[in-house]
Amino acid sequence: MTEPALTVDLGERSYPLYIDSQIISSESLYRKHISGRNVLIVTDENTAPHYLPALQETLSGFNCNRLVLPPGESQKTLDTVASIYDQLMRDRFDRNSTLIALGGGVVGDICGFAAATYQRGVRFVQVPTTLLAQVDSSVGGKTGVNHPLGKNMIGAFHQPACVIADMDTLTTLPARELKAGLAEVIKYGLIDDAEFFQWVDKNLSGLLSLEATSLRQAVAHCCENKARIVASDEREKGKRALLNLGHTFGHAIENACGYGVWLHGEAIAAGMCLAAQFSIALGQLPEPDLAIIKSVFQRADLPVQPPAEMTAQDCLNLMSRDKKVKDNILTLVLMKGIGRAFLSTDYDRSILEHTLDSAFSGAAGCLSENE
Amino acid sequence: MTEPALTVDLGERSYPLYIDSQIISSESLYRKHISGRNVLIVTDENTAPHYLPALQETLSGFNCNRLVLPPGESQKTLDTVASIYDQLMRDRFDRNSTLIALGGGVVGDICGFAAATYQRGVRFVQVPTTLLAQVDSSVGGKTGVNHPLGKNMIGAFHQPACVIADMDTLTTLPARELKAGLAEVIKYGLIDDAEFFQWVDKNLSGLLSLEATSLRQAVAHCCENKARIVASDEREKGKRALLNLGHTFGHAIENACGYGVWLHGEAIAAGMCLAAQFSIALGQLPEPDLAIIKSVFQRADLPVQPPAEMTAQDCLNLMSRDKKVKDNILTLVLMKGIGRAFLSTDYDRSILEHTLDSAFSGAAGCLSENE
Repeated sequence: MTEPALTVDLGERSYPLYIDSQIISSESLYRKHISGRNVLIVTDENTAPHYLPALQETLSGFNCNRLVLPPGESQKTLDTVASIYDQLMRDRFDRNSTLIALGGGVVGDICGFAAATYQRGVRFVQVPTTLLAQVDSSVGGKTGVNHPLGKNMIGAFHQPACVIADMDTLTTLPARELKAGLAEVIKYGLIDDAEFFQWVDKNLSGLLSLEATSLRQAVAHCCENKARIVASDEREKGKRALLNLGHTFGHAIENACGYGVWLHGEAIAAGMCLAAQFSIALGQLPEPDLAIIKSVFQRADLPVQPPAEMTAQDCLNLMSRDKKVKDNILTLVLMKGIGRAFLSTDYDRSILEHTLDSAFSGAAGCLSENE
Repeated sequence: MTEPALTVDLGERSYPLYIDSQIISSESLYRKHISGRNVLIVTDENTAPHYLPALQETLSGFNCNRLVLPPGESQKTLDTVASIYDQLMRDRFDRNSTLIALGGGVVGDICGFAAATYQRGVRFVQVPTTLLAQVDSSVGGKTGVNHPLGKNMIGAFHQPACVIADMDTLTTLPARELKAGLAEVIKYGLIDDAEFFQWVDKNLSGLLSLEATSLRQAVAHCCENKARIVASDEREKGKRALLNLGHTFGHAIENACGYGVWLHGEAIAAGMCLAAQFSIALGQLPEPDLAIIKSVFQRADLPVQPPAEMTAQDCLNLMSRDKKVKDNILTLVLMKGIGRAFLSTDYDRSILEHTLDSAFSGAAGCLSENE
């Protein structure tokens, strides 16, 4: 019997994370965490051919249905959630049903939100098949969809019953998505774990070449870091906001380019570089750290500059709609050093504008390099 | 300063209920429970002319916007919730904003669900202006909207910051809605409070003629009963389900007739009579109690029979989609006596069918009597 790699400690909402190889079709794991007879697997067209038939076979002892969505961030809408409700209602799925999110972060966010709100909340199991989803969206219970005017603006906190992260799924992941996931991995080092940053720096080629041991170690370490932060601040009243390093800039980039044109990981890589540049301009971060940070991203083939077709003003406008705006003040995650991120609300706005002006005028074709 | 009539005790989600006259425009009450600058009042076209201008004046110290919905249960859809998101996004309302639900249960359910899911949850204040909303939907944190195939199928638990129930609002309520609210008042007596059932029976004419003291007493008593039950079982894992007395039958009636044709209170009055008839058929309820129950409903001008245009089979089909179905077994709230409701899953299905067959074949034009 597989043992959990760790448990996210949230009182009665605690749940285990299984991180290993060859566990995606382990019937005993699912049996342990599904109650009732009805199961709906929500997945997308990219993931389904690889894992859906085997998973349906594994779950053949249940009344198991499936919903295969078109892939991509553009699906993360209220309409898609409505299509899940429609299927659940048509199939007469009751409150004791279980939803399984099989796929990346997009599938997890949509399926999790449907689970949070169908009959005021049903059980769901996360089976993340991308590196990004394994290290980020599978821990913490944030679920939701985008609004045309802003990312993740509609949602709920809803913790899964368990997370089953199978390392083998990363072998079928397009290289671009693996690299995008590494942006989130690197983020954990930058926030509060300089030692892990160095470990990633040293093991980057192993990670890029899908070395199973390195990958499992990286995923488990990121999940432990995130679980620790989330356990101390489930509803993001304080410390949890550090996990948004690079995200306010990154979300603006994703929105400006149209969701899905830049991958989330790509956008936050450029976003973390912007956060570093602004931290330097404020005299908080030593200048040499920027080169170290950029170097890791560049070796992972990730963008370190914002898109050429976007202006500083676009970025400021989109940032003003961020969820971290409170009474017109935008909380930003900045850095005093590698592994020393902090929250700031009292920064000088003119320095922010100046930083963005120079960063955006220097930008050129970084996404095409990356594609 | 107005003191709360009671507090719903839910740990860190506890909140006060103010139940009195002349409190709907009390600025100090709102100031105490609104944080941040941004306030959106959600109301409907029936309620707005009576109370919106004064409330906007009261809240003029805030950045206060409004959204006036068409009235009625047919508005309780995901599309309406989306229109609230649209307005909040257009107005750049942040996570520290407050939604105010000014109106009946429909407005409260829609607005509460928008508050539960906008930016993963913002604060909301309930200002119930119907008797039904004051005694029922303002306590307990159930929010949500209907799915075309079932009532309240999409939703979330989200507790308000406070409830401001002003008795004076009942003077502008159409008589039909006042009576529909009395169905929920009577329900509290039937569930576990025979003494209150007798009190209502005795004070019915005072309640129907809007006697302020009787109304305040009834509302406070119902809210206390509900708050006690909810505090012991917030997520409806057990006892809270008793509050659904008459609702499984009632929801089927509402759905069969088209939402809004029968008012919720009317449907559950007929539903409680069906629950009583089935309880008698099972040998649980003494037969004379049915006459006592019907008599109160009839004096409140409420239906005691299901709609003539509906069949027993319609009812069974719709009931099979109820949220209280778990693994194909439908939990029903039945009665051993007045004030002695209980949950049952192991009833004889053929007796249920037989009860419905005779109840529905005997039905005739009861809504038209009631209109």
